[in-house]
Amino acid sequence: MSGPGEFELIRDFFAARFQGSAPEAGVVLGIGDDCALLTPPAGKTLATSVDTLVAGVHFPATADPYRIASRALRVNLSDLAAMNAQPLWFTLALTLPESNADWLAGFAEGLADTAKRFDVQLVGGDTTKGPLAITIQVTGACDRPLRRDGASAGDSVFVSNRLGAAAAALPIVLGEVGGSEIQRQQMDASYYFPEPQFTVASAIGGYASAALDISDGLLADLAHICEASGLGAELDLNQVPVAELAQTMSGDQARTVAVTGGDDYQLCFTVPQQHLPALNVLNLPITCIGTMTRERGIRCTLDGEPWTHAQPGYRHF
Amino acid sequence: MSGPGEFELIRDFFAARFQGSAPEAGVVLGIGDDCALLTPPAGKTLATSVDTLVAGVHFPATADPYRIASRALRVNLSDLAAMNAQPLWFTLALTLPESNADWLAGFAEGLADTAKRFDVQLVGGDTTKGPLAITIQVTGACDRPLRRDGASAGDSVFVSNRLGAAAAALPIVLGEVGGSEIQRQQMDASYYFPEPQFTVASAIGGYASAALDISDGLLADLAHICEASGLGAELDLNQVPVAELAQTMSGDQARTVAVTGGDDYQLCFTVPQQHLPALNVLNLPITCIGTMTRERGIRCTLDGEPWTHAQPGYRHF
Repeated sequence: MSGPGEFELIRDFFAARFQGSAPEAGVVLGIGDDCALLTPPAGKTLATSVDTLVAGVHFPATADPYRIASRALRVNLSDLAAMNAQPLWFTLALTLPESNADWLAGFAEGLADTAKRFDVQLVGGDTTKGPLAITIQVTGACDRPLRRDGASAGDSVFVSNRLGAAAAALPIVLGEVGGSEIQRQQMDASYYFPEPQFTVASAIGGYASAALDISDGLLADLAHICEASGLGAELDLNQVPVAELAQTMSGDQARTVAVTGGDDYQLCFTVPQQHLPALNVLNLPITCIGTMTRERGIRCTLDGEPWTHAQPGYRHF
Repeated sequence: MSGPGEFELIRDFFAARFQGSAPEAGVVLGIGDDCALLTPPAGKTLATSVDTLVAGVHFPATADPYRIASRALRVNLSDLAAMNAQPLWFTLALTLPESNADWLAGFAEGLADTAKRFDVQLVGGDTTKGPLAITIQVTGACDRPLRRDGASAGDSVFVSNRLGAAAAALPIVLGEVGGSEIQRQQMDASYYFPEPQFTVASAIGGYASAALDISDGLLADLAHICEASGLGAELDLNQVPVAELAQTMSGDQARTVAVTGGDDYQLCFTVPQQHLPALNVLNLPITCIGTMTRERGIRCTLDGEPWTHAQPGYRHF
């Protein structure tokens, strides 16, 4: 129940755009054999992550294929960044309802441009017939992995840049509401071209005790650090940096989007007190929003008053 | 558009059955963080392969989940075997229409039993909502990789064991025709529990010039060795070992199934003449069926006469 049609597809649309080997990146043999052959860098730990994006669930089925490819690869690269790993290579498992040359050309171009931008090699893939879905697995190398389970009570909680842009963009991306041309462009960028935070991750690598990328919303993702580390957290929501795109909303809405909206792929991380002076002088785009606590659960305050929200993040099922 | 429901699913149904780390296998950190952390074996080349199985395309949507898991992992492991790599670890990207505890429990049990049988560790995954599909990526380590592009004119062409069992089983697996209880059991085994040919691959590793696993049918897959090596081949179809299950068919049907049917996951490989004596004394379950030629294309003979078949293998699109 499987066969050769896939090979021509992969070869025509992907192999032609991606070189078969890249010895400097440890790629001995790329697309086209039973397996890719890879020589990992000596003395490093490998970090690997896989994510599936399903049409109609993770992106609109009619979205521009160049943008789908960009988002699919960037979302995966964000997991490497969150681990403080440098990208090496990735694989693509692409399920398509039909072989559409225009769609594939756009998708391959988006994938190639994104791969070049982040210096990561496509080394293998599979193309199957079925409902549109994209599974990408990225592998990177790291010296100082940033895990979720390393936080201690008293560590400060930080986020990178600003939160809420992608969640604020979603209704416009989905066409549910309109928006000015400039708004549409900004929202398109924040949704389809999220920036994996490699630079921040690399800078905090020597100081942070735990980290992850915010894909499901700040509160939902910080809960993973809390759980993995056996701790809780106190957050001052007045400190949470709200993205400019979300500031077009009312204050309440903007704050809710910033702390519960997913898809921003900013970093959330914890830093022991003794490392704060060294971190502060780096002048990074990061903001302290709270403290890890022995008491479990996440307690938020706004203007000094307790703040609660029913739904900490999107649930798949 | 993504969120935390997936984490509970992965944790409940998979993490509980697979240990989080396995230092002896190089798994520093398994399921549950942004990335798995892995220490590859020193001095070895890594081999990695990804395959997607879509419900209704690669297996019946109503198939037993234990069997789906078995087939999904074994099909992927076969790519490692074809490369002469030993399994290390794998990831699972599972797309499900709904969170069904019974289905997940059966699937996880099938995956765990298969992983244990082949000594391979589940290190990461993603669970998404959508049409049922399974993407598995396996990674292994090899000293002597068997590529497709190493054959030379004059090399003998071999296959392992017998061909045609899975293709003969398919109508019964799909419920299109009946069959005796014993036939059903044999066909269930050949379809859902194909055996990755690690033992044969390891034995021929020092002698073979090219190899792959037969997933799309002998003629379609041998064509990949021919193309990668810039050669053709001559086959004597009287030499092709036909699986017992296919021998219930007429002679013509059985032969057609053996040379064009996919899903057997036997090896097809080429051996230079000077290595034949050393290979012969190993008494492996392999059969010489032809010779690689400078002339392109695959030419088959049956009882000394040219033999042609319109469709060399299943096409996806």
